[in-house]
Amino acid sequence: MWLFNDPPRKQLQERYNFDATDAWLEHVQKSSVRFNSGGSGSFVSEDGLILSNHHVGADTLQKVSTKESDYLKLGFYARTLAEEIKAPDLELNVLISIEDVTARVNAAVKPSASDEEAFKARRSVMAEIEKESKDKTGLRSDVVTLYQGGKYHLYRFKRYTDVRVVFAPEQQIAFYGGDPDNFEYPRYDLDVCFFRAYEDGKPAKIQHYLKWSEAGTKDGDLVFVSGHPGRTSRLLAMSELEYTRDYRLPKTMERLNRLEVLLMSYSGRSQENARRAKDELFGVQNSRKANVGRLAGLLDPAVMAKKAADEKKLREGAASRDEFKDVVGAWDRIAAAQKLIAENARAYNLLEGGAAFHSELFGIAHTLLRAADERPKPNGERLREFVESSRDSLELGLFSDKPIYDDLEELLLSDSLTYFVAEMGASHELVQKVLAGKSPRARATELVKGTKVKDVSFRKKLYEGGKSAVDGANDPMIALARLIDSDARAARKIIENQGEAKQQAHAAIAKARFAVVGTSTYPDATFTLRLAFGTVKSYEESGKQIPPHTIFSGLYERAKEQENRPPFDLPKIWLDRKSKLDLKTPFNFVSTADIIGGNSGSPVIDRKGEFVGIIFDGNIQSLVLDFIYTDDQARAVSVDSRGIIEALRKVYRTDKLVAELTKRR
Amino acid sequence: MWLFNDPPRKQLQERYNFDATDAWLEHVQKSSVRFNSGGSGSFVSEDGLILSNHHVGADTLQKVSTKESDYLKLGFYARTLAEEIKAPDLELNVLISIEDVTARVNAAVKPSASDEEAFKARRSVMAEIEKESKDKTGLRSDVVTLYQGGKYHLYRFKRYTDVRVVFAPEQQIAFYGGDPDNFEYPRYDLDVCFFRAYEDGKPAKIQHYLKWSEAGTKDGDLVFVSGHPGRTSRLLAMSELEYTRDYRLPKTMERLNRLEVLLMSYSGRSQENARRAKDELFGVQNSRKANVGRLAGLLDPAVMAKKAADEKKLREGAASRDEFKDVVGAWDRIAAAQKLIAENARAYNLLEGGAAFHSELFGIAHTLLRAADERPKPNGERLREFVESSRDSLELGLFSDKPIYDDLEELLLSDSLTYFVAEMGASHELVQKVLAGKSPRARATELVKGTKVKDVSFRKKLYEGGKSAVDGANDPMIALARLIDSDARAARKIIENQGEAKQQAHAAIAKARFAVVGTSTYPDATFTLRLAFGTVKSYEESGKQIPPHTIFSGLYERAKEQENRPPFDLPKIWLDRKSKLDLKTPFNFVSTADIIGGNSGSPVIDRKGEFVGIIFDGNIQSLVLDFIYTDDQARAVSVDSRGIIEALRKVYRTDKLVAELTKRR
Repeated sequence: MWLFNDPPRKQLQERYNFDATDAWLEHVQKSSVRFNSGGSGSFVSEDGLILSNHHVGADTLQKVSTKESDYLKLGFYARTLAEEIKAPDLELNVLISIEDVTARVNAAVKPSASDEEAFKARRSVMAEIEKESKDKTGLRSDVVTLYQGGKYHLYRFKRYTDVRVVFAPEQQIAFYGGDPDNFEYPRYDLDVCFFRAYEDGKPAKIQHYLKWSEAGTKDGDLVFVSGHPGRTSRLLAMSELEYTRDYRLPKTMERLNRLEVLLMSYSGRSQENARRAKDELFGVQNSRKANVGRLAGLLDPAVMAKKAADEKKLREGAASRDEFKDVVGAWDRIAAAQKLIAENARAYNLLEGGAAFHSELFGIAHTLLRAADERPKPNGERLREFVESSRDSLELGLFSDKPIYDDLEELLLSDSLTYFVAEMGASHELVQKVLAGKSPRARATELVKGTKVKDVSFRKKLYEGGKSAVDGANDPMIALARLIDSDARAARKIIENQGEAKQQAHAAIAKARFAVVGTSTYPDATFTLRLAFGTVKSYEESGKQIPPHTIFSGLYERAKEQENRPPFDLPKIWLDRKSKLDLKTPFNFVSTADIIGGNSGSPVIDRKGEFVGIIFDGNIQSLVLDFIYTDDQARAVSVDSRGIIEALRKVYRTDKLVAELTKRR
Repeated sequence: MWLFNDPPRKQLQERYNFDATDAWLEHVQKSSVRFNSGGSGSFVSEDGLILSNHHVGADTLQKVSTKESDYLKLGFYARTLAEEIKAPDLELNVLISIEDVTARVNAAVKPSASDEEAFKARRSVMAEIEKESKDKTGLRSDVVTLYQGGKYHLYRFKRYTDVRVVFAPEQQIAFYGGDPDNFEYPRYDLDVCFFRAYEDGKPAKIQHYLKWSEAGTKDGDLVFVSGHPGRTSRLLAMSELEYTRDYRLPKTMERLNRLEVLLMSYSGRSQENARRAKDELFGVQNSRKANVGRLAGLLDPAVMAKKAADEKKLREGAASRDEFKDVVGAWDRIAAAQKLIAENARAYNLLEGGAAFHSELFGIAHTLLRAADERPKPNGERLREFVESSRDSLELGLFSDKPIYDDLEELLLSDSLTYFVAEMGASHELVQKVLAGKSPRARATELVKGTKVKDVSFRKKLYEGGKSAVDGANDPMIALARLIDSDARAARKIIENQGEAKQQAHAAIAKARFAVVGTSTYPDATFTLRLAFGTVKSYEESGKQIPPHTIFSGLYERAKEQENRPPFDLPKIWLDRKSKLDLKTPFNFVSTADIIGGNSGSPVIDRKGEFVGIIFDGNIQSLVLDFIYTDDQARAVSVDSRGIIEALRKVYRTDKLVAELTKRR
C-alpha cells in the first residue's frame, strides 16, 4: 500500500527488474478513480468510461431502481449516451497531486498545548491549508493524516459529480455464490459495473486511461493494484489492537448481526422489501464476514505474539538511542488515551456514530441542524465535515433525491432506538427524553411520519435559511437531533481529543520507527490512493493447491453441484448463451497484491500499464491483512480482463461498449 | 393457564354456561401429552396415536433423517406399523395425578435458615418426596414450584420412551411462509406431525384420547386448550421485569442474532449443511422473533405502567393489613436478590448455561464428568438433574445415538469460544486456560477431533465406571469440562441461592395476593399441564378486521402473490392435487385462548371434549402474553381439524391414518 509520492522503486527493481518510471506512475495514478461512496475504479476509455465493481456501483444502482425497473437485480445497458442514467449523488475523485505539509501542520501546534488546544489548532490549520489550496487550484483539497500522525500530506483531486450508469450485469452473476461464497476462492463472479464521467453535459475527455489487455495474466506475472484501501491497523500499538479485539470488533459484530437478522427478516416478507433492503443487506453481510475474519486474526496468538514482538523491538530500539528517549513513554500515552476512548465509545457510537438513530431521515435532520450551527463559524473552528473545502461534497449528499422508504426507515429507527435503550438503560435520562413516553416502535413511526426532511426542497430551504429557518421549522426529527446534539458533541470532543493525544504519540513513534526499522514502511490505509504489487500465484488450503485462475466452465459446474439453488443459480441469458462462450476463458484470478476493503474496483495492471483485471474481493485468509501482511495464503481476488470481454461479447452482446474498450489509439 | 386441580369452574359456568365436570377434566387431562423435547400433543386414537406440531416433532425428524432420506424436509408416512420409525431419545409424559406438598416442603426449611441452607433443605426434601413417590407408584414424580414458590405440587406422570414417527408433511407446508410469516396471521400452515406411543414393543392401549371433530369450530365458539405453556412472567416483581427488559432479553437477542447469522451462513454453503442445521436454525429464528415481541412489550410504557400499578396496589394492600406487615419488605428482598443475579448472570450463562461451549459433545462430556461426581452423593444433596427420580430421563438423553456432525460442532464451538473471549476478555485467566494458547477455531477443532464421547458405548463405559473411569479417560473434552466445572458450580450456587431468596419473598407475596386480589389467579407457566379457554374470534389490525378462519384457497392465493418464491412456494403434491381439494375447507383459525411457547401442539377442544384443532403459533400481538394477559388483539393460532383431515384425505391419501382418526367407538 505504497504512497504514489514514495513508491517502492528499489524493491521493484531488485525483485522484479521493473523500472517504475515517473511517467508510468503518473499514468497509473491519473487513470485511478476514487468512488466516494466507498470503493475504487479506473478510466478505461478516452471518453470518460469508468470500470468499477458491481458491488461498488450497487449503491447507485439501488438508488436509480424502482419496483418496476430493478437494475440492481436485473442489470442495465445503455445502448446510447442518451440512455445512460445519472447517479443522484455519486462523487468520483481523481488524484492530481500530493504535497507534504507536515511541517506547517506541526508548526501550528504549540509544544505546550493541551490535547484539546492541539486538536483545535491542528483542525484549524488543516482547514486553512485546504481552503487556500481550493481557492488557488479549484481542486478538492484534503489534508490527509498518515502514519497515525507521523506525516500530513495535502491531496488535490479533480471531482466528477455528473456520473452516469452505462452497464451492469445481473446481481446474480456479479455476486455469484452470494454470501456463502463471499471471501472464498475459487470464484466465478462478473463483479463489474461501467460508469461514464461527464463534464458540462458531455462525456469527459480523459488523457490518462488504462488500455484493455486481451492477453491478461499468467501464473507468476507481476501485477500492480492502484486503488484506495480504506483502513488498516498495522501500525497500531498493542493497547489499540487489544481494544480492537476486546471491544471494537465484538461490538461491531453485535450490531452487524442484529442488522443482518433484521434486514433478512424484512426482506423475507416480500420481493419489494427484498429490493429495498438489498444494497444495505449486502453491505452488512460483507462487513460481518470481514469482521469475523479480522477478529479471528486478532484471536490467533501467533499474530498477537508477532505484533507484541515488533512493538517490543521498537520500544527497546527507541530506548537505546538518546534522541528517542522521549518516545519511550509514547506507548503508555496511547494506552491511557485508548482507555478514555474505551470508556466513551458507547456514547460516541450511539449518539455521534448514529447507532441509536439508524435512519436516513435522522441523518439529514442532524446535518441540517449542525449546518445551521457550524456554517456561521470561522472555517477553522468548524466540525471537519463542514469546512469550506468539503462544502460541495456535503451538499451533493444532503440534497440527493435518492429514494427513502418510510417502512424501512421505521423498522431501522425502531430497532436502533431499542438498541439505544438496551445500551444505555431504560431509565437513563436521555433515553427517556428521546422516547418521550412512547415505545421505540411508536416513537419511530411518529418521527418518520412527522418529519418533512424527506422533501429535498424543504432541506434546501432550511439549509439556506440557516439557524432561524431550522429552529422555526418545528420538525420532530430535527427536534430529536437537537435533543441529542450536545451529548453527541461532548462524546465526539472526548474521542477527538484522545485521538489527538494518540496522534502525537504515534508521530513520535513514527520518527523512531523510521530510524530503527528504516523508511521502507508505508502508512496505514486512509482511503487515499496507494500502489500495491504482487504476483499471480496459487496457494495451499486444507492440503489442496488452489490454482490462480478459474475458467467459465467452472461456473457451470458450481451451479450444477449446488443444484442451481440460489445464490448458485445462473441468469437465464448465461444458460441460453453457454454454447457461444469459450468455456476455457479465464474468469477470476488471485494474486499476492496487498489489498483491503476500499480496494474493491481497483484496476489490476501489468508491467505495460494495461488493464488485466479488477479487484473485487480477498480470500478468507486475506482478512488478517488488516493487521499484518502475509502472502502465505492471503490472496486478492480479481475478475480477469479476458473473462469480462468474453462475457460482454458473447453473453451481453454489448458491441458498442466492447468497441470502446478495445479501441486502440 | 389454569391448574387442572384448581379449574376455573365458576368463570366457565357464569360466562359460558359450561359445566367442567370431573369426568370431562380427567378425560382432557389424560388425553394430553407432554413432549419433553419442548412442546405438547394429544392422544387421538386408542392405539397410541399422538398428534403434535411438525415443529415440535422436527427435533426427532432431524435426528432420524440422513443426507439421503431427509424426512424433516420431504415428509414421511408409515403405511404399516413396521414402517414407523423409532425416535432416538424422545420422552413423552402424561399427567396422572397432582398432590399438594407445600406444607411438607416448607416444613423442611427452618425459619432461621440462610438462603443457602434453605435452598439445600428444599432441594433435599423435594428429592425425597420424588423418590418416595417414584418407588411407590413407579411413575415419574416431579415436585413443581408454583406461584414462584407460593405452592409446591407433586406431579406424577406416565412416561413413554418408545415413540415412533407415523406421519409428517413436507416442512414447506408445515411451516408455510417460513420465518417471514411466523407469528403472523392470516396463516396457511399444516403444522402437524403424528407419532405413536409403544409399550412392550406394541402400540400402547390408550383409555383417554380425543375424538376427532369433523364439524370443527365457528366464529364465537368456546374452545379449550390443554397443554404445557413453558414460561410466563406475569407474577414477577418490577425489579425482575426491569432486569428482563434491560439485561435478559437484550442479551438473549444478542446471542440469538449471532447464532442465526452463523447458522444461515453455514446453511448457505450447501444443501447438506442446510439439512444439518435446519432444526436448530428454526428454533433460533423462532426464539428471536418471540423475543423481539416480548421486548417490545416491556418497552411499551403502557404495559410497564399497568404492571407498576398492580404491584403498588398489592404492596399497599399488604401494608394495610396487620397479618401481612412482614410481606412489605418482600419486594426489596427480590430486588436485592435480582441485583446479585444480574452481577453473576454473565458467568452463569457462559459457564453453566453453556453459552461459552455451544457443543453437543461438550454437553455430553460435562454430564459424564458431573454424573461421576454427583451419583455417589446422597440423593438429596445432588444437583437437581442427577436425582434418582430423573435418572431414566437423564440416561435417555445421554445415551441417545442421534447424529452429531463434526463440522457443525466445530463451527458452533469455535463461535461460542470467540463469544466467551469477547464476554470475559482475552486476558481473563479462565479464558486463557480454556484456549490453551490457541485461537478459538484451532482449539475447537482440536477438541472435536480429539474427544471420544461421540461414541455411545464409550459414554456408557464412563458413566458406569464412575469417577475413576472418567478421570482415567484422558479425554480432551472432559478435561475442558473439568477445567470450568468449579467456576460453573460456583456461579450456579449464587444464582440458585438468590433464586431461593426470591422464592421465599414470592411465597410471602403470594399469600398476600390470595388475600388482597383473591384466589382467582393461576400461577406463572412452568411447562406443566394447564387448561386455557377462550373463543374463536376475529380481531382488528391496522384498521382491518381479520376473520378468524382461513381456507385452502387462501394458501394458493398467497403463493401466487409471492410469485412462488421460497418460503412461499408449495410442495408439488399440493399443486398436483389442488383440484381434488374443497378449497373452502377451513385451514387455520385464531382464538383468544391464553397460550405461550410450550403450548405448541396443544389440542384445541370443544365443549364435548372433541379435537377441533391444534395450536401452533400466536400472532405478534400475543407475544406480550408473557407478561400480561390481553384478548384485545392477542390470538392463539391453530390448524383446524377440518383442514387436517381434508389434507390427509385428498393430498396425502393416508387412508389408514384417516380411518384410525375418524373411527368411532
